[in-house]
Amino acid sequence: MELDLFREYGHRFVDWIADYYQNIESYPVLSQVGPGDIRRQLPLSPPDEGEDMERIFDDFKKIILPGVTHWQHPSFFAYFPANSSVPSLLGEMLTAALGAQCMVWQTSPSGTELEEVVTGWLRQMIGLPEGFVGVIQDTASTATLCALICARERSTDFSVNRYGFTGGEKPKRLAVYSSEHAHSSIEKGAKIAGFGREQVRLIPVDEKLRLVPEELEKSIQRDLASGITPCCVVAALGTTSSMAVDPLRPIGELCKKHGLWFHVDAAMAGSAAVLPEFRFIMDGVEYADSFVFNPHKWLFTNFDCSAYFCRDAGQLVNTFSITPEYLKTDVDMRVKNLRDWGIPLGRRFRALKLWFVLRFFGVKGIQDKLREHIRLAEEFAGWVQQDERFELVTPVSMNLVCFRYNPGKKKLSEGELERVNKALLDELNAGGGMYLTHTKLGGKYTLRMCIGQTSTGRKQVEEAWKRIRSAKLEA
Amino acid sequence: MELDLFREYGHRFVDWIADYYQNIESYPVLSQVGPGDIRRQLPLSPPDEGEDMERIFDDFKKIILPGVTHWQHPSFFAYFPANSSVPSLLGEMLTAALGAQCMVWQTSPSGTELEEVVTGWLRQMIGLPEGFVGVIQDTASTATLCALICARERSTDFSVNRYGFTGGEKPKRLAVYSSEHAHSSIEKGAKIAGFGREQVRLIPVDEKLRLVPEELEKSIQRDLASGITPCCVVAALGTTSSMAVDPLRPIGELCKKHGLWFHVDAAMAGSAAVLPEFRFIMDGVEYADSFVFNPHKWLFTNFDCSAYFCRDAGQLVNTFSITPEYLKTDVDMRVKNLRDWGIPLGRRFRALKLWFVLRFFGVKGIQDKLREHIRLAEEFAGWVQQDERFELVTPVSMNLVCFRYNPGKKKLSEGELERVNKALLDELNAGGGMYLTHTKLGGKYTLRMCIGQTSTGRKQVEEAWKRIRSAKLEA
Repeated sequence: MELDLFREYGHRFVDWIADYYQNIESYPVLSQVGPGDIRRQLPLSPPDEGEDMERIFDDFKKIILPGVTHWQHPSFFAYFPANSSVPSLLGEMLTAALGAQCMVWQTSPSGTELEEVVTGWLRQMIGLPEGFVGVIQDTASTATLCALICARERSTDFSVNRYGFTGGEKPKRLAVYSSEHAHSSIEKGAKIAGFGREQVRLIPVDEKLRLVPEELEKSIQRDLASGITPCCVVAALGTTSSMAVDPLRPIGELCKKHGLWFHVDAAMAGSAAVLPEFRFIMDGVEYADSFVFNPHKWLFTNFDCSAYFCRDAGQLVNTFSITPEYLKTDVDMRVKNLRDWGIPLGRRFRALKLWFVLRFFGVKGIQDKLREHIRLAEEFAGWVQQDERFELVTPVSMNLVCFRYNPGKKKLSEGELERVNKALLDELNAGGGMYLTHTKLGGKYTLRMCIGQTSTGRKQVEEAWKRIRSAKLEA
Repeated sequence: MELDLFREYGHRFVDWIADYYQNIESYPVLSQVGPGDIRRQLPLSPPDEGEDMERIFDDFKKIILPGVTHWQHPSFFAYFPANSSVPSLLGEMLTAALGAQCMVWQTSPSGTELEEVVTGWLRQMIGLPEGFVGVIQDTASTATLCALICARERSTDFSVNRYGFTGGEKPKRLAVYSSEHAHSSIEKGAKIAGFGREQVRLIPVDEKLRLVPEELEKSIQRDLASGITPCCVVAALGTTSSMAVDPLRPIGELCKKHGLWFHVDAAMAGSAAVLPEFRFIMDGVEYADSFVFNPHKWLFTNFDCSAYFCRDAGQLVNTFSITPEYLKTDVDMRVKNLRDWGIPLGRRFRALKLWFVLRFFGVKGIQDKLREHIRLAEEFAGWVQQDERFELVTPVSMNLVCFRYNPGKKKLSEGELERVNKALLDELNAGGGMYLTHTKLGGKYTLRMCIGQTSTGRKQVEEAWKRIRSAKLEA
């Protein structure tokens, strides 16, 4: 190891990182480069001889940085947050330095046991009942895939894991249900796990964009009538488009009645359940078989860190466990080997950064931050409502405001509204001062203002509103 | 952001990390704690109030560190390396600091374009033909799963992605072929993707533990005769147990003849192809549809960083692409959106550390390191051969020596040999001075000496041999 070099550049990088955060508002939030702009500055072949770290660092600043969209910028309001924090960053430094491969207990006992402890902490923080056990996955997409695979196995009288999807005496089609606003990862998972995209039923929603349980029941009955086996329902606790909260209790009751796997995708909104005043979103979660939320979204922890909870880890192990001789250890019967709890064999020591975050802020510190984001979203929504040129497309939900330009007097068509709001979005994002993204809700082109970056405060939200109001808004 | 705190602890962590590496040989390689030892030192619930970073750092050193198996220790000879290096560590610091979510081009153009460039560099370094395009996955397990999913789609006249495994007019069973020594991820992938574990054919190997193409042909014919559809062959370029190299050319020819998907798993040994003198292992790779190797194993780059190459990325996109409104961007037709090239939606900026590594060492610097590891493995194997109490179980292959205690005179049974070699392994690992793991080859309990850590030199290999020879070796 070139340790002197590590000391020198390690210290310089720490200072650079601190300066970066200090001056982060001087960068455009959304990278302003065009397709190919970065690539064409880079050589087509690797260097034969090693290069100076100084030159690499220079190129990082000169070539790479302009092509970075600054997710940690306090005026990042796009998609969802992927927030970080000082304790998370410090934890990541140690994780990278240890370079421990936490695939089985023995290859780093702390990796496995700390993961058990901190996922237990999270379980308590969001009010998941005892009996749920946690494991860190890379993303909610992967976690939902895990749920679909477990559901698939439980819904067939033969074993899909062992004999394959076509292993039964007669072919079985398995159906998956979610609201029409649920995340794209459900369709993706249904493709990967062999259900097929056409076996995903997108259930209609009510005026608040929440899955309608009666429609779910109808859909289940239709499948039963046509010889298709209902298998799994995925409820969204906070849809990506509008943070709509599906009603867990009636959905859970239907799952129980029909013997379906009940998976809850709370990717971003799970964090809100840390607040007693938002705990109501979890009502009925006791019916769930599995539950996922992402500390790497809105809990100040670097990506990747997605917390998957299930009632019976044996179902995960049943699919994912393959124990060749070279992976056997003496303690296998007495420990958890987390390689058997997910798709990849290898695993980073991801619990460490989460432990740093939860301890450094404490539950109260985290609650303060979440409350501030939610308060700012409500304040922003108030401004939207007070300006007759704008409207909320749905009521504000937690930290997300869905709004658009729509001066009632002008009576613009949906097509015109899409055009003018798209132009507004492009103007805001091209300005570099803030970054917003869009969705469509009931056919309406909608701007999403998602407030969840670690350092976002009233100042940035006020500025954003000012920028929005002063944009060219010609219909 | 608590930037002063970051500066203070960032600098202290850099010094701690440098000291850790400097003194890493003072730690036992394999953590010596027992099951539950770490967990019982940690509180069952998260703290309400935030805690001092000093206290967290203290607990990291006092509680967590004893439970860490030191993968970066130069006397780590177990499993496979998961090596790191100074440039990789520095790259990881910047990746964590930027906290960029590289799911689509727009959310960080540099994330996408640098990944395209550095996987192109890797392609050239290992002699993969032009026409292969690369993408970084988390692990080879996931990469192999991606290959199986693409193979599944190509082998069916209906679309599994769209209609599901049971979507055809009559159910189709798809078979997957690999050597009996191939990695467990193939069976795992076959379960996840719905083929079923029973549809994996483990093909016999020759005396060098390489898949026998004639046996593969027989197995394919047997399946065809029983109405099962041959789908995919996975060849191992370096099996985990013994680094055996399956012959790509005759396997590839069979795949071509039968129209099967040909996936090559070169997880660790792919690195060796960077050396002209080992390039021969790639002979026949032009038949492959997909290829994976892990810079996070033996190319000095932090986990996770698995390079997946395929000839037709459209096949990945076909499975993994789901584009809800909220993920659409204006440039979608002109750029790669790498979320469509794998399972998770979210993606870290993993190309950055790889770029740091390839530039800092250069191709020659990397070749020097790999050659040194291979030379040390050969030297170690020579010592084994010269000591009549020990034997090589297979010829040394690249950086892996498979050996065991077996004093010919004593004529020990396989059972006795297993007992005494297991005792030898336990004694060595309990001593803390080195870490070895085992496998079974043709029923023989075998010790694996895998030389690939960044800082492993002659000193550590000599010490290891000394420890092995001076262990209690009573049969």
